[in-house]
Amino acid sequence: MKTVKPFAGVLAPVLTPFKKDLAPDRERFVAHCLWLLEQGIAGLAVFGTTSEANSLSAEERMDLLDALIAGGIRPELLMPGTGCCALTDTMRLTAHAVRNGCGGVLMLPPFYYKPVSDDGLFAHVAEVIERVGDTRLRIYLYHIPPVAVVGYSLDLMERLIKEYPSVVIGLKDSSGNWKNTEAILKRFPGFDVFPGSEVFLLSALRAGGMGCITATANVNGMAVRDLYDRWRTPEADRLQDEITKLRKIIEAYPMIPALKQILAHFRNDPAWAAVRPPLVRLTRTDAQALIAALEQKKFALAA
Amino acid sequence: MKTVKPFAGVLAPVLTPFKKDLAPDRERFVAHCLWLLEQGIAGLAVFGTTSEANSLSAEERMDLLDALIAGGIRPELLMPGTGCCALTDTMRLTAHAVRNGCGGVLMLPPFYYKPVSDDGLFAHVAEVIERVGDTRLRIYLYHIPPVAVVGYSLDLMERLIKEYPSVVIGLKDSSGNWKNTEAILKRFPGFDVFPGSEVFLLSALRAGGMGCITATANVNGMAVRDLYDRWRTPEADRLQDEITKLRKIIEAYPMIPALKQILAHFRNDPAWAAVRPPLVRLTRTDAQALIAALEQKKFALAA
Repeated sequence: MKTVKPFAGVLAPVLTPFKKDLAPDRERFVAHCLWLLEQGIAGLAVFGTTSEANSLSAEERMDLLDALIAGGIRPELLMPGTGCCALTDTMRLTAHAVRNGCGGVLMLPPFYYKPVSDDGLFAHVAEVIERVGDTRLRIYLYHIPPVAVVGYSLDLMERLIKEYPSVVIGLKDSSGNWKNTEAILKRFPGFDVFPGSEVFLLSALRAGGMGCITATANVNGMAVRDLYDRWRTPEADRLQDEITKLRKIIEAYPMIPALKQILAHFRNDPAWAAVRPPLVRLTRTDAQALIAALEQKKFALAA
Repeated sequence: MKTVKPFAGVLAPVLTPFKKDLAPDRERFVAHCLWLLEQGIAGLAVFGTTSEANSLSAEERMDLLDALIAGGIRPELLMPGTGCCALTDTMRLTAHAVRNGCGGVLMLPPFYYKPVSDDGLFAHVAEVIERVGDTRLRIYLYHIPPVAVVGYSLDLMERLIKEYPSVVIGLKDSSGNWKNTEAILKRFPGFDVFPGSEVFLLSALRAGGMGCITATANVNGMAVRDLYDRWRTPEADRLQDEITKLRKIIEAYPMIPALKQILAHFRNDPAWAAVRPPLVRLTRTDAQALIAALEQKKFALAA
């Protein structure tokens, strides 16, 4: 019987700050992670899409993970993204995460080749699990077809859960499609499902979900956490409305540069605005419009 | 004035053989490359899509490149794929290729984030060029939107050619869309364009293309080379028909496992059939049907 739930609540796919030379900025990264935990963030999904992790080499990711642990973050709060195109990279990052005691890993499917079969994706995940060969491994599948294009079908989830019930224990659903999240929750009771946006947080909790893993937690984590804490109260729908409204303001712009711009502005730390190509910063006009829209709002960072 | 053309003719995106444990098989790889050159292949586009290069780590690619050079392949005949999602990986592989004297590199755009702007892609390629900082660098852009989804627009090509005329000197067009290849050839005279399939070889040569870079050259290179040698003769259309017919037989199946199955069969070397996940081997039924269809045909490997 599966009773241990390594993660529950609101997780942040942590933004990765860069220095002027575009190298990852370890100090700002550790400081931001510590701040997120102070905000009530239940887990740090470092090296996700929002983290520009696919613009980082495997070495850069491992170095940043080491820096977090050295910086005092408890590894059981970490859910690093480890899914790469190459089997060997995925294995290496996953083994490194497990060896360091991470609570789990968030695993993209290999996303270059298209189309790929469920058999091929199953073989990939199975190889990683067998080769890592560590009973502490906990995998959350990362389903984000709008970006990765390749995703996990429900049939594939079922095969993986059946074959590796103590390893493949959950999923982040960034399909943006509530029907998909709902179908997963119905079909796999006990599977730890996190929608990839706080817009679906209340619906997910009501349907048996574990919380959410959402980009905006980088700037508005406390309010999202507040809904998680009070979802069974009469306040819940109002709280959901509020956090949804804030998200809508932000997601009118490209999400990652927008979030970095917000941090740069409200922390008075322009270095935060840097992104690594192929992403580009917000234009000055967009940045001003976004900040103006947010100045009217209350949220954690502005407090 | 740009006069040196590092590559012209028929290039093979070389298949990567794997051992039983799915590690790259250096010996078979070197032997296959030497055989391809004997077949009249003008250049080895190692680590392309057909090579399952996106299922290899950066270290595995560099190790295989080193093995080729140690195995006697002249580096100027090599056009390794070096384009990864991460700026730092692309830089590292590109610098390694240049340092080893490769004739050029074939560069995928960073393909995880979508959508991305031409500005972001330009910044990525520009960063790589500036950081590698070696006048010997020659880049062929690798445009393959059916797989990578992210591609190079004609406007982006123009910006890159204008900014780096001695570096960004050509392109492989695997769009599968002749109209796109034709438009590139018309707009950028002197730019070295290779369609990604021999189906377009004759059309490309007639329109000023440099040759082709085609997966089937792994098994039928000599015949494709023959068309390249005789494209101005009255035989050209017939030769084109013949190689197109052979390709159609093969591409009725997933291309990479099909090509590996062909090598495994006609070389009586079953190890060649291995693919790395997320790809899967041909089913036994498909393999038998493919081989039966090819037994009727004459081509290099069967000779």
